[in-house]
Amino acid sequence: MQFELTKELLSKTKEIIASGDEKLILELINDLHPADISEIIFELEIDEARVILHHLTAKGASEVISHLDDDVRLDILNSYTPLEIAEKFIEYLESDDAADILQDLDDKKKEEVISYLEDLEQAGQIVDLLSYDDGSAGSLMGKELVKVYDNITVTEAVRQLRKQAGELDNIYSIYVVDKMERLLGILSLKKLLVADQRSLLSSIIKTDILSVKVSAKDVDVASMMQKYDLVAVPVIDELGRLVGRITIDDVVDVIRDEAEKDYQLASGLSENVESSDSIWLITRARIPWLILGLIGGIFGARVIGVFEYDIQLYPEMAFFIPLVAAMGGNVGVQSSAIVVQGLANNSIGMDGILPKLLKEFSVALINALVCAAIVLVYNLIFSDSLALSYTVSLALMAVIIFAALFGTFIPLALQKYEIDPALATGPFITTVNDILGLFIYFSIGRLMYGFLS
Amino acid sequence: MQFELTKELLSKTKEIIASGDEKLILELINDLHPADISEIIFELEIDEARVILHHLTAKGASEVISHLDDDVRLDILNSYTPLEIAEKFIEYLESDDAADILQDLDDKKKEEVISYLEDLEQAGQIVDLLSYDDGSAGSLMGKELVKVYDNITVTEAVRQLRKQAGELDNIYSIYVVDKMERLLGILSLKKLLVADQRSLLSSIIKTDILSVKVSAKDVDVASMMQKYDLVAVPVIDELGRLVGRITIDDVVDVIRDEAEKDYQLASGLSENVESSDSIWLITRARIPWLILGLIGGIFGARVIGVFEYDIQLYPEMAFFIPLVAAMGGNVGVQSSAIVVQGLANNSIGMDGILPKLLKEFSVALINALVCAAIVLVYNLIFSDSLALSYTVSLALMAVIIFAALFGTFIPLALQKYEIDPALATGPFITTVNDILGLFIYFSIGRLMYGFLS
Repeated sequence: MQFELTKELLSKTKEIIASGDEKLILELINDLHPADISEIIFELEIDEARVILHHLTAKGASEVISHLDDDVRLDILNSYTPLEIAEKFIEYLESDDAADILQDLDDKKKEEVISYLEDLEQAGQIVDLLSYDDGSAGSLMGKELVKVYDNITVTEAVRQLRKQAGELDNIYSIYVVDKMERLLGILSLKKLLVADQRSLLSSIIKTDILSVKVSAKDVDVASMMQKYDLVAVPVIDELGRLVGRITIDDVVDVIRDEAEKDYQLASGLSENVESSDSIWLITRARIPWLILGLIGGIFGARVIGVFEYDIQLYPEMAFFIPLVAAMGGNVGVQSSAIVVQGLANNSIGMDGILPKLLKEFSVALINALVCAAIVLVYNLIFSDSLALSYTVSLALMAVIIFAALFGTFIPLALQKYEIDPALATGPFITTVNDILGLFIYFSIGRLMYGFLS
Repeated sequence: MQFELTKELLSKTKEIIASGDEKLILELINDLHPADISEIIFELEIDEARVILHHLTAKGASEVISHLDDDVRLDILNSYTPLEIAEKFIEYLESDDAADILQDLDDKKKEEVISYLEDLEQAGQIVDLLSYDDGSAGSLMGKELVKVYDNITVTEAVRQLRKQAGELDNIYSIYVVDKMERLLGILSLKKLLVADQRSLLSSIIKTDILSVKVSAKDVDVASMMQKYDLVAVPVIDELGRLVGRITIDDVVDVIRDEAEKDYQLASGLSENVESSDSIWLITRARIPWLILGLIGGIFGARVIGVFEYDIQLYPEMAFFIPLVAAMGGNVGVQSSAIVVQGLANNSIGMDGILPKLLKEFSVALINALVCAAIVLVYNLIFSDSLALSYTVSLALMAVIIFAALFGTFIPLALQKYEIDPALATGPFITTVNDILGLFIYFSIGRLMYGFLS
């Protein structure tokens, strides 16, 4: 809240950098949090960013770099040599942040940077972390933690904590392992502070603890930490040995990315893109769904083509094509969004597909009646054709109910076959509903005009 | 990860409850985490839930209740008397969780429950918390924290921590205040453990700390905690006095709700609804956007009505109405989603509206050329009318470019006037693009048929 990047501050920063006045630059950055400096650097040219980074301590610079947006960071890092990256940015970071940064570099540069790291333990930890699959608990965890054996006293544990805790930013718990490095339990710092100094750890640790396997999916870790309100969770390998820990701040990004991913799919974006990405990247994320929509539109054209003769006789039928198509799309998107979010939240209930479709049918029926009534009143007043009036309202009802059931069913079915239900939302649902809606509309129209004329 | 609620477990649970066998019920729930029991209760009838809650300790029952979905929780609580609620569920909770639960009850019941609380300090804290506006930092914070004065030693601080920490689940820091209760600094537990026992707190506390005002918006607190990687943040009043603390687990819900809210608006849902909500609630969330779409469709009908004569002459013009309308909608939704997410993430850059529109124009131009080319090839092969072929492709290009610019501009403009930019996504953008797209399409058609015939 305290810091806000204004246009004035940005242009003042650019001026100061251009002036090259060391004292002013230091004044500018000295009181700022690394995350704030990252926010400024996000708006700067690479040369300007380098000036700021040059005036920071290595610890400060590495924190600024680790807070930066991936794309901007990569551009900046590519302007440094591997040796500079190792000394200036990596050495002072915790292993998980270091691995995140290195991961984006190309393989050759990555290896060079690692070869320049002086702390061999850190280098080993980073290499370990880089070996885990993207999207696994291993890729999310950090190696820094305080680990003690179970056969020691509280006094000795505090002594070891002091020794091990030196460079760690945050410690929430101490992990207790046996001689084989297998995780036995957790001791919160609070407990360590309030416990009798002479107690044996084995008598006071919490052994009934939650942990995750190193191969677990990051989204599963995220939902577990949310469900059980965990601030940190230990990560174990297949043998139960403690290999790292995941903290809630790493998981917050996973939670947000996951929620955003559903939104992106619903909006017809096939990749995670930002407005600052390249034109090529943005186009690549957008064109697949557009082409799908295009193919749907062409199918729609063929459906209407079947009714060419009807349109020639009753051109007013064409007026309501967009209305029928749009309403099918809108209802389908609403229905599928409710299901997709329910699945993402685990709030959907286990009562099977049929009760859900029945409930959706009730909702759809109300919506359909309201919408059909409004259009009917409009058409009875403003349209000369009674056949058209009835056709539009009947078709609208049919389309709304169909679209609602379809929009509910498809994501549930996808989920059952372990396909991401969010794929069903947005353009896909809209397109299918468009085509079927048109068919329903014109079929009802042909019947109506047949009856009434 | 360990626990998964299967259909088998659910039906077994229902059987055990129906049998009334105390031993089996206790066996079932003894090894489960309160969050897991909540998951089971979510699927049970109220009477069944009451049996489970009856067999839990008061501490266990209150944790189960606090993990439950709001709607289900309210139904269950309404089956208990105020005295039972106070004794069984509220007394053992921290103030923020207690306030969350009470908030949903009606005012009379809320007051009665509070009047039955035996711990007057807790009752006072809850009343305080209930007085804050929903969506403020105050409504999010808890009152439980460890607070010490600055003129004491580390040894004394540890002694006070032991006294104050008794019932607190998690402690990450000690807050240090002056005689006027104004927040001076923070001491992490780690620092308390590693510091020299005789140091004065004033010499080792971190005074350069981040805090939030009690009236701050919850979403601002959330983005601040994310930005600075905070696990807990102190809350101060207008005079700088410490009044509470917000922990990251409370904020995770805000972050997720915020991301979901954008998705909901984009999907045409005006309220946060779940598939388990009542038919009436779901309908109320859906119908406003549907009626907006309906009005848009009626306008669309009027636009096409202007071109009735053209359609009678060239009915094939009607074939591509859905394609043009749908593509405008799809492109508009994509564009606005990228902007809305960028604004939510602060990743959008400060380079003003014009450069963003220019970039969007480039992306749209590529998309438009690709899509127009595909349709042109299709029409040249399958359609007899050259005029139609050119019309569809030209209109498609115009519509895609217009929709992209419009979809980018509207959320940026809304943001500027401090209206939620997510309002611009979904049905609104789709509807406006539909109408304008149709007008563009038929206007181009009239020109083309004029030229080519």
